[in-house]
Amino acid sequence: MAAPLTLAQLNAASPDEAVALLDGLYEHSPWIAREALAQRPFASLAQFKHAMTRVLAQASHEAQLALVRAHPELAGKAMVDKNLTAESTNEQNKAGLTQCTAAEFEKIHQLNRDYNAKFGFPFILAVRGPRGLGLQKAEIIATFERRLQGHPDFELAECLRNIHRIAEIRLNDKFGITPTLGNQVWDWQEVLSQHTDPGYAELGQLTVTYLTDAHRACAKAISKDMQESGCDTVHIDAVGNVVGRYKGTGANPRALMTGSHYDTVRNGGKYDGRLGIYVPLACVHALSVQGKRLPFDLEIVAFAEEEGQRYKATFLGSGALTGDFNPAWLDQVDAQGISMREAMQHAGLCVDDIPALKRQAEDYLGFVEVHIEQGPVLNELDIPLGIVTSINASVRFQGEIIGMASHAGTTPMDRRRDAAAAVAELMLFVEQRAAADGDSVGTVGILQVPNGSINVVPGRCIFSLDLRAPRDAQRDRLASDVLAALQSICEKRGVHHALQETMRASAAPSAPEWQQRWEDAVRTLGVPLHRMPSGAGHDAMKLHEIMPQAMLFVRGLNSGISHNPLESTTSDDMQLATEAFELLLAQLAEEAAH
Amino acid sequence: MAAPLTLAQLNAASPDEAVALLDGLYEHSPWIAREALAQRPFASLAQFKHAMTRVLAQASHEAQLALVRAHPELAGKAMVDKNLTAESTNEQNKAGLTQCTAAEFEKIHQLNRDYNAKFGFPFILAVRGPRGLGLQKAEIIATFERRLQGHPDFELAECLRNIHRIAEIRLNDKFGITPTLGNQVWDWQEVLSQHTDPGYAELGQLTVTYLTDAHRACAKAISKDMQESGCDTVHIDAVGNVVGRYKGTGANPRALMTGSHYDTVRNGGKYDGRLGIYVPLACVHALSVQGKRLPFDLEIVAFAEEEGQRYKATFLGSGALTGDFNPAWLDQVDAQGISMREAMQHAGLCVDDIPALKRQAEDYLGFVEVHIEQGPVLNELDIPLGIVTSINASVRFQGEIIGMASHAGTTPMDRRRDAAAAVAELMLFVEQRAAADGDSVGTVGILQVPNGSINVVPGRCIFSLDLRAPRDAQRDRLASDVLAALQSICEKRGVHHALQETMRASAAPSAPEWQQRWEDAVRTLGVPLHRMPSGAGHDAMKLHEIMPQAMLFVRGLNSGISHNPLESTTSDDMQLATEAFELLLAQLAEEAAH
Repeated sequence: MAAPLTLAQLNAASPDEAVALLDGLYEHSPWIAREALAQRPFASLAQFKHAMTRVLAQASHEAQLALVRAHPELAGKAMVDKNLTAESTNEQNKAGLTQCTAAEFEKIHQLNRDYNAKFGFPFILAVRGPRGLGLQKAEIIATFERRLQGHPDFELAECLRNIHRIAEIRLNDKFGITPTLGNQVWDWQEVLSQHTDPGYAELGQLTVTYLTDAHRACAKAISKDMQESGCDTVHIDAVGNVVGRYKGTGANPRALMTGSHYDTVRNGGKYDGRLGIYVPLACVHALSVQGKRLPFDLEIVAFAEEEGQRYKATFLGSGALTGDFNPAWLDQVDAQGISMREAMQHAGLCVDDIPALKRQAEDYLGFVEVHIEQGPVLNELDIPLGIVTSINASVRFQGEIIGMASHAGTTPMDRRRDAAAAVAELMLFVEQRAAADGDSVGTVGILQVPNGSINVVPGRCIFSLDLRAPRDAQRDRLASDVLAALQSICEKRGVHHALQETMRASAAPSAPEWQQRWEDAVRTLGVPLHRMPSGAGHDAMKLHEIMPQAMLFVRGLNSGISHNPLESTTSDDMQLATEAFELLLAQLAEEAAH
Repeated sequence: MAAPLTLAQLNAASPDEAVALLDGLYEHSPWIAREALAQRPFASLAQFKHAMTRVLAQASHEAQLALVRAHPELAGKAMVDKNLTAESTNEQNKAGLTQCTAAEFEKIHQLNRDYNAKFGFPFILAVRGPRGLGLQKAEIIATFERRLQGHPDFELAECLRNIHRIAEIRLNDKFGITPTLGNQVWDWQEVLSQHTDPGYAELGQLTVTYLTDAHRACAKAISKDMQESGCDTVHIDAVGNVVGRYKGTGANPRALMTGSHYDTVRNGGKYDGRLGIYVPLACVHALSVQGKRLPFDLEIVAFAEEEGQRYKATFLGSGALTGDFNPAWLDQVDAQGISMREAMQHAGLCVDDIPALKRQAEDYLGFVEVHIEQGPVLNELDIPLGIVTSINASVRFQGEIIGMASHAGTTPMDRRRDAAAAVAELMLFVEQRAAADGDSVGTVGILQVPNGSINVVPGRCIFSLDLRAPRDAQRDRLASDVLAALQSICEKRGVHHALQETMRASAAPSAPEWQQRWEDAVRTLGVPLHRMPSGAGHDAMKLHEIMPQAMLFVRGLNSGISHNPLESTTSDDMQLATEAFELLLAQLAEEAAH
């Protein structure tokens, strides 16, 4: 095996030499590396990878299609006939595809036929998987089946993204790079995902809700991980948060708090929340191994509850730290009739100690949180990390338009009071109004004509409204325009409406100096900078109430799908997130030194 | 009591005299009659009534409001204090409102307060009722509660229509007119409505489905009504149609067929179908009393089944006459598991005799059908009768748009594949495209995001499409444009769709010479002529396959609501329909004589 490539070598080589060094990166398509190499020198491998994704994004549709079509079918004829490139053979081997049963072969072949017939190009999946250990055959087949249902434009993009992922893995091989920190974060999460609530393990589903046996097993596992990584103190607090502290030199009496939640939604993913516990823990581990101390304490909190699945008490873990634990929650019961109070007693938690969990702002520098994006933006832009500018403000409504049910055949168009058509008009208004802001979102997620009949003009239509924007004032303008449109649509159409506000949350804009630290870290990594609001709520929203905060997003694969077992990211991206966190710590340490 | 007014008197009187003759017609508002009188002479009372409705329709909003406000509250303070006009006192007396219990008074007073608070004018209802016999107190309260939910514009129009109805009843009193034929038709339908399927009587609901006990009781009652009205032969045929024949002189060997259905939808109205049986029967009765014979036989068919409620076999009754009875229907089972074959055996019907029911075109002059409009058009135009130009062609689809479900907070507007927004866009297209035709209609009656969540961008949305137009080609252009829009919306939005055609029916345009006969009859009555397509299907659609046909519509009250217990019309309008039928018969007789 040749000696690993270096970035210096790649930057110094002649174009032809450089292309030769990168041979096999994109299947039968050296032109991608060649065009990207024109932008040398590269400060980082991340920058070079991103340059190649841009080359392909700007290529013609035909060139993109040709690249996809240059790939072999998964477990296809080329594999059986041993006509694959060396790289493909290796990858399909590692995925176990060369050891398929006859039934598995037939299933995959049928999927290949159907996919090719539908889209006109082969199905591409980076079978060496996010961590490079190889996806399971069952995972491959499940992903194949899901993507067969996709839209042609979307599937082409999905194939291209998988091709980039394949190239990334091949590039790591060439450079002899192993994303050690990322792999560690990956492994911790993989092990933690073995704990799941009763009834879900059998289904192969991950579900960890507040204070179940699986939840308490997670707390123990995280405690152990924290201890083994070098945290000086680790404890489980009165609401079940696992709190690890890596002591500093004492130069700065204020601590940096970080963390995220370890509970999950039902049938959720392995990274939502947990990534924000293990990325900083990997940093502590590295510091500890090197015997380094920061000038301040680092407090990592694994929040016990954020998702509001077992009880209707979201942000319970972070809320306890801001003094927002509502004692009325204790009397809530779960689906089995077990009250939260009983669940806490069963877990050995002392309710009386909860008020004392409240943190004092003067004890902290601030709060930072790493989280998987849970959206498609970074994935589509081929950018691994995102700078969160604000956690969006939101407001929700449940609504109904009441018109006049009438005969679909006998009621002329100009004499209708169609409740559903009025909602349709509102929906399109919401869509264009939110889009006009650029960074607002508006969704009608619930929509129904109750007891609708094919031959009856709808007399009623129920709908929901979910409106979000990075700032409260922007959200309020959005909501006010939408409500005004609802009013005028109803007046124009001679229908009326009922509307009830069901939720309102303020925005949590990132503290500028903390956002800047993330930006500096990402820039130092040579990763393209992308600022974005967070559409979803996060624990940082609660901490925002008492201290400055800023979040870092990590790209999610599969279009950023989340609250779903297909939620995924790569150990390369986790590696970058961990390196960004290390850079942020280093910068803070330097600031403390001055 | 003064001698009844005559139209000649009214036409001859000076304006002031004429206004004095009509004193009390519109509550405290003689200006309406005064303005209408400027159009004298009137050929008919119907023409004069229509002129008054036009005066009010063209009056200012303020003048309309003032008229409504000139009316007393229902069972209100004015009644209790005996400050009503003589006419109002009489009407509220007849409705039993002066004998309300304390609880009923309180209920009505609360409704009056709520209604006035919401709309700013009193609730007006013609309490002497459609037939002038007085609505029941319970009916009044139910109507009041329903209208309290209405839209302000609609309610003002509804009050004005009720004021016209009050004026019509008062005008009949002044002219000493009793709509004898209309009352007879009213009474027959009232008596027939006493038969209802098990479980519905207790609810006060009218439901008569194919071959139930109630259905067979109806057949017997109609047979008896036909015999007593002078039909020469009456029999129940092999599918349960009741067929009465009033023999002619034999001058023309071809018969005129007429009729409609006597089955109902669940919780339906008293007039849908049945009006078309009893209007011609009233004519037979009048002819029989006078000992008159037409030069042709008149065959009145009370069709056993049209609504497709118990079995999925609509137009079974009229279909049997056109040879379209499908033997496969016999094996259909109802909700209780009773097959149609069993139901027919139980009813004593002989399945083997069904094919012989098929009529031969050469035996008939044609088919005419009277039917309540089941729509709002005539009611809004204040026109009692409508000339049907065509029974609309229709096509129905069940559809689904498949997009990509994603997080409502984290998916930017420009990265969504929102299935429901795509349907919304289609709905607005259907609405404007159908409206552009003027006489096409398009409806999305079923609309649902399955398992929709407030915070999830809809990944799926199911919908129905019902498209109708007076001509097949127009329906086809409409459908083709809608499907093209669906295609282009899906392409633009990156979503895809599934669509299934579930029904397609050809248009049944009225035979020109038969439509002309209805027009001549209506013109002779001095009733304004209004031509309109029928959006709903009718038995005439089936007979259309073998003989010329044309329909006459009768105005429905309550915005033409149908398939609902609130379906209603007036005995004055039924009187006009019967007179129109008599005129059509007379004209046919005259044609036969030449």
